[in-house]
Amino acid sequence: MNTETAPRALGRPALDLGALLAPRSIAIIGASSNEGGYSSRSLTNLLRTGYSGSIYPVNPRHTELAGLPCYPSVGHIGQPVDAAILLVRGDLVTDAVRDCVDAGVKVITVCSAGFAEDGEQGAARQAELVDLTRAGGSRLLGPNCIGTVNVIDNIVACPTLNITDVFTPGSISIVSQSGGMAVNLFNRAQGRGIGIRGVVSVGNEADVDVADLVDALADDEHTMVIALFVEELRDVPAFAAAVAKAHRAGKPVLALKAGRSEAGARSSLSHTGALAGSHRVFGNVMEQLGVLEVDSIDALIDSADLLSRMEPPASNRILIVSPSGGECSYAADRASELGLRVPALSAQTIDALSGDMRFGTPGNPLDLTGQVIGNAGYLAGVLRELERAPEFDMVLYAIPTWGPHDAQRLLPGFITAAQASVKPTVISAWTAANLTQHGEAVLAAGKSSHFGSVDAALIALSNLARWSDLRATAAKAPTARGAATVVPRPAELPELPTEHQAKTFLRRQGLPVSREVLLADTVAAAHAAGAAADLGFPLVAKQLCAGVVHKSDLGLVRVGLRDKAELDQALKGFAEIVAGRDLESEGLLLAELHRGTEVIVGGIRDPRFGPLVMVGAGGVLAELVDDVVFRLCPLTREEAGAALDGLAVGRLLRGHRGTRYDRDALIEIIVGFSELFAASDWLAQADLNPVIVADTPTGGAVIVDAALVLTPPTKE
Amino acid sequence: MNTETAPRALGRPALDLGALLAPRSIAIIGASSNEGGYSSRSLTNLLRTGYSGSIYPVNPRHTELAGLPCYPSVGHIGQPVDAAILLVRGDLVTDAVRDCVDAGVKVITVCSAGFAEDGEQGAARQAELVDLTRAGGSRLLGPNCIGTVNVIDNIVACPTLNITDVFTPGSISIVSQSGGMAVNLFNRAQGRGIGIRGVVSVGNEADVDVADLVDALADDEHTMVIALFVEELRDVPAFAAAVAKAHRAGKPVLALKAGRSEAGARSSLSHTGALAGSHRVFGNVMEQLGVLEVDSIDALIDSADLLSRMEPPASNRILIVSPSGGECSYAADRASELGLRVPALSAQTIDALSGDMRFGTPGNPLDLTGQVIGNAGYLAGVLRELERAPEFDMVLYAIPTWGPHDAQRLLPGFITAAQASVKPTVISAWTAANLTQHGEAVLAAGKSSHFGSVDAALIALSNLARWSDLRATAAKAPTARGAATVVPRPAELPELPTEHQAKTFLRRQGLPVSREVLLADTVAAAHAAGAAADLGFPLVAKQLCAGVVHKSDLGLVRVGLRDKAELDQALKGFAEIVAGRDLESEGLLLAELHRGTEVIVGGIRDPRFGPLVMVGAGGVLAELVDDVVFRLCPLTREEAGAALDGLAVGRLLRGHRGTRYDRDALIEIIVGFSELFAASDWLAQADLNPVIVADTPTGGAVIVDAALVLTPPTKE
Repeated sequence: MNTETAPRALGRPALDLGALLAPRSIAIIGASSNEGGYSSRSLTNLLRTGYSGSIYPVNPRHTELAGLPCYPSVGHIGQPVDAAILLVRGDLVTDAVRDCVDAGVKVITVCSAGFAEDGEQGAARQAELVDLTRAGGSRLLGPNCIGTVNVIDNIVACPTLNITDVFTPGSISIVSQSGGMAVNLFNRAQGRGIGIRGVVSVGNEADVDVADLVDALADDEHTMVIALFVEELRDVPAFAAAVAKAHRAGKPVLALKAGRSEAGARSSLSHTGALAGSHRVFGNVMEQLGVLEVDSIDALIDSADLLSRMEPPASNRILIVSPSGGECSYAADRASELGLRVPALSAQTIDALSGDMRFGTPGNPLDLTGQVIGNAGYLAGVLRELERAPEFDMVLYAIPTWGPHDAQRLLPGFITAAQASVKPTVISAWTAANLTQHGEAVLAAGKSSHFGSVDAALIALSNLARWSDLRATAAKAPTARGAATVVPRPAELPELPTEHQAKTFLRRQGLPVSREVLLADTVAAAHAAGAAADLGFPLVAKQLCAGVVHKSDLGLVRVGLRDKAELDQALKGFAEIVAGRDLESEGLLLAELHRGTEVIVGGIRDPRFGPLVMVGAGGVLAELVDDVVFRLCPLTREEAGAALDGLAVGRLLRGHRGTRYDRDALIEIIVGFSELFAASDWLAQADLNPVIVADTPTGGAVIVDAALVLTPPTKE
Repeated sequence: MNTETAPRALGRPALDLGALLAPRSIAIIGASSNEGGYSSRSLTNLLRTGYSGSIYPVNPRHTELAGLPCYPSVGHIGQPVDAAILLVRGDLVTDAVRDCVDAGVKVITVCSAGFAEDGEQGAARQAELVDLTRAGGSRLLGPNCIGTVNVIDNIVACPTLNITDVFTPGSISIVSQSGGMAVNLFNRAQGRGIGIRGVVSVGNEADVDVADLVDALADDEHTMVIALFVEELRDVPAFAAAVAKAHRAGKPVLALKAGRSEAGARSSLSHTGALAGSHRVFGNVMEQLGVLEVDSIDALIDSADLLSRMEPPASNRILIVSPSGGECSYAADRASELGLRVPALSAQTIDALSGDMRFGTPGNPLDLTGQVIGNAGYLAGVLRELERAPEFDMVLYAIPTWGPHDAQRLLPGFITAAQASVKPTVISAWTAANLTQHGEAVLAAGKSSHFGSVDAALIALSNLARWSDLRATAAKAPTARGAATVVPRPAELPELPTEHQAKTFLRRQGLPVSREVLLADTVAAAHAAGAAADLGFPLVAKQLCAGVVHKSDLGLVRVGLRDKAELDQALKGFAEIVAGRDLESEGLLLAELHRGTEVIVGGIRDPRFGPLVMVGAGGVLAELVDDVVFRLCPLTREEAGAALDGLAVGRLLRGHRGTRYDRDALIEIIVGFSELFAASDWLAQADLNPVIVADTPTGGAVIVDAALVLTPPTKE
């Protein structure tokens, strides 16, 4: 079986989002009267927000809790129960889950900790829970999670007091592997007035995982944007399929990954028991799947908010308008650093604005003069004129720390213009405690998108613009990834093939490999000249020796031999080195000489992501700059081209100082190799290094060296 | 005269900070009764904050304003006037300034706009103001500025209503070239509860500039940290001297530069009339001077705040503690991205913490369990134990969005530990509107350093750590920079010397240049063999031709000729190319062959920064990665080494895969060239490209090619 195919298909019922987020009845197992305590909070929260379904507290030590009858077990309720929340001690969970399954509870949320995050015994207890629920047809959320919040229906099914008590409904759904971060994200968004549809804390993902949620939320009429806080993806193919489904429904998926650094991963490991993946691979694959990766809590909620409110811009060209020249410069700098373009005004726009001489020299960023800003009618005219200018596709109005007087008098003109704009338009207005409170209230009442700092506004706008590109990429991605055929393991290949064996295999699979001749040691000297004549000078000579991997370090590679005399001299030199170092020769390799730019193409199998192709800079560049990218296998020509364009060496291959490279030939090798690697599950790793890309448009690309590592042969 | 020496010495009196920030009497010229209007606000602000000195409104149209006698002109006041604030129309400014000078006003603040920022006529008006004030011994702040705020003495001498009305005094002084940003910075800091000593808006800097302020604030007993918002430095040597003085007084200088991007510079240009400098040069020079450059408004005020409250840490190793595992990962990721190290706990610390089994596996970041956090006594013990651990030098307590219940019960333990810590320790507690208000009040009352997000806390801490390094750098920097000697312009050098002329000059100045022989065209073929024998094979042959700059593009360079036969063949090839392309030969250059890593060393004269040396990666690397750094000339060996360490190629030269380069020889070339360039004001530009650094520790470094551009010869 392919390592990359997870056992998702084994009889799991689809997640019933209704039972999870809006159950008609909820049992709270382990509910208590301990005020402020963990075990009382779920009940408190449900009652506080006015849950309209049936609540069944379950605790053998009580007969009544908060005025509700309390049951000794779920089995005693005697009514259908959609959802159960388990708050009991870890050692009581298994029995409680069994009771729930027996009672036909649809979704069982286990908040209790002490499972896979807590070592091997915990993992065994967790596996038992999964077996129980799957056998009974229930679904299990958690363990080690904090449950759900459904803002649309006012249901807070989670055991924490740290939940803001004024709700703003919206169309963003938050899914988090960390319970603490689920709460932080929710509260921080609500505190900013950002509307939320719901929050799901998936904890250890014993059963229900992020992929299930993305899949279910793609169908949810209340959800327009899906925001994820993830530490590790447990089922990449299912996640990819769910994201593709969300895209088809027009819903962007954003992700903030924890454990990106080595130190962050250390914590992630102890926290959820998830294997920490390489962040580079994660980021590269998210880009390939069209998931918008962000790097901070605020970027996640602010960007999700903009995506839920407006269509992305047609391009990354922004107009910046401010009544402060210093703020104009500051905002333009930040926009440029975030990858936005701040184009100059066109002559036509300058003419339109200069007409009545209230501007010295209108530009972008546009420093509004006191005359403009103080005259509401004129300001409206200027902003209308700018709205019509075709040279930008989004707008930022950057407002200073205005006190009540200026906020009252001057803000409404900007709010009106932002609301009337057909282009994404946001307002940043620096907040400063009491001074700006009135302005914040004016903005909140105005319903335009607004931010408390220039920085936050531009980060969100830049992500809105990135989504334009990602959406286009995602639309062209294949719906599923898998090998069309299977390449059988060649009997003649050992676990660690020699360079010549590796290249011979690749050549037989249709990949372009440099022409070469292997001469056995005993015939080398005698036949070298003939072989060289066949290949043609100049050529490369390599002395192969048992156990020697870095041949060039020992002087056993000679590049660019131009005639027989130089070849003879090289062979003599090799012989001396072999004798002097007491090496065991394995033959002489003569090969065509290729010149051009060196690229590495490799393949690895990731325990989470499955077969990945890697492309990067080769040669001296590879030693100095970090210039590689990973992609899921197999990939399309468009995906290979896009991957190359993100690399320094890829931009070089687009042409450089009049030189044109055969980029297309490299793309053929990348795509061909990715198909081969996906189809050869016996191939553990591969390095085509270097692939030399000719410095003429049709000069081709050729694999000059290759190393393969096969999986250990299965013993039958 | 050297371009880099500004005319600061020409009889300017030192800035009297007392008269600027705490005048005993203030005249407000152009004061009016127009409520909320620009011309009434200075008076309103002074009265509102209870200014204890004398206020003299000046306006011929009033005899009384706000209950104070109003004068027709400054001359009519008849009392000594320390400071004057001018709010009159641009065309009335000159006469008003003349009145002030005649009346002996010490500091004249011109808020009015319409000067150098407004074109040539405005620049002429501005020059006239400077002439007037200098002749009379007054100093002038502005024009086009908003004046000053002195928080310590409660004096708001600026015409804006957008000033927070509750003041928190502190030891940070803000100096800004943008009036709008001066206000934003002040309000945002005060809104965060960050104490400020004062704010000065320097506007167009006709007279008083940033350097004057840094110099004066270095002596100010109330100022401990100087925070700058700058668009352009007008007098770099004066600024460097002032920063050095501040450093000697133990006061860090922070800078946020506007106009870093092309678009930002566009706006900056129209705003203040300042020439926009290259941001790379600015950033590089700030690093050399030990100025802490930051990239955002919030980073500037938050970092200044930490620097004003605590000593920087001994290293960049941080301990992260949080009650949420997800937040642990998130904070560790952010810390790593900001260049902080998050080291693992030592075995000793793990033992100390694991003693009573309340932690599964203690680590860094440290995920506190519910048992720890809920038990104040135990928490205190854990935090004390961590405080003693020698493996980190600063601490972050990362708190989730705690509501009132948890904030009341759990926050005090962290506040107490932070206060008791001898290492820099801060608390981040995510803010979320009403939910976290109680926690914010608890933190504010607790006097520990706290932030509303993990991100803001870590940015400030990382800048605190950077200051440790910068302070050390600054302590070793030379007190003044200038050429020890003057190198006279050699009569034989034309404005654009040939490669051979340039290299001959550099060799005579004592720099190592590759050995070479120039053979005139007529004797080349005949003498080549003899010259080659002198130089020794292998060598490089270059055919020089009139007007051909990129010789290798035409095949006129052959590298690595190994014997006479190859040399003859090369010469024959050159002759064919010269004939075929109808070129005019200027001779044949034969040179030693050098192998190693290629580096570029260059020199430019910047209109602001004066002579600068540039060092960067050469060869193919230079084409692909942006790897250069600029430094003021001349520089020390230590400065050259530090500059190299910031480059990718510099890290390569530290040693790479067993290869050791002669880095010291390169440093000698950089230092020697920087001294030569500083001493040769007739040298406009220079490129030593490549300098080849040998790949053995004592193999030397040698200039292999060089281009010089001389200033146009002066006509006498």
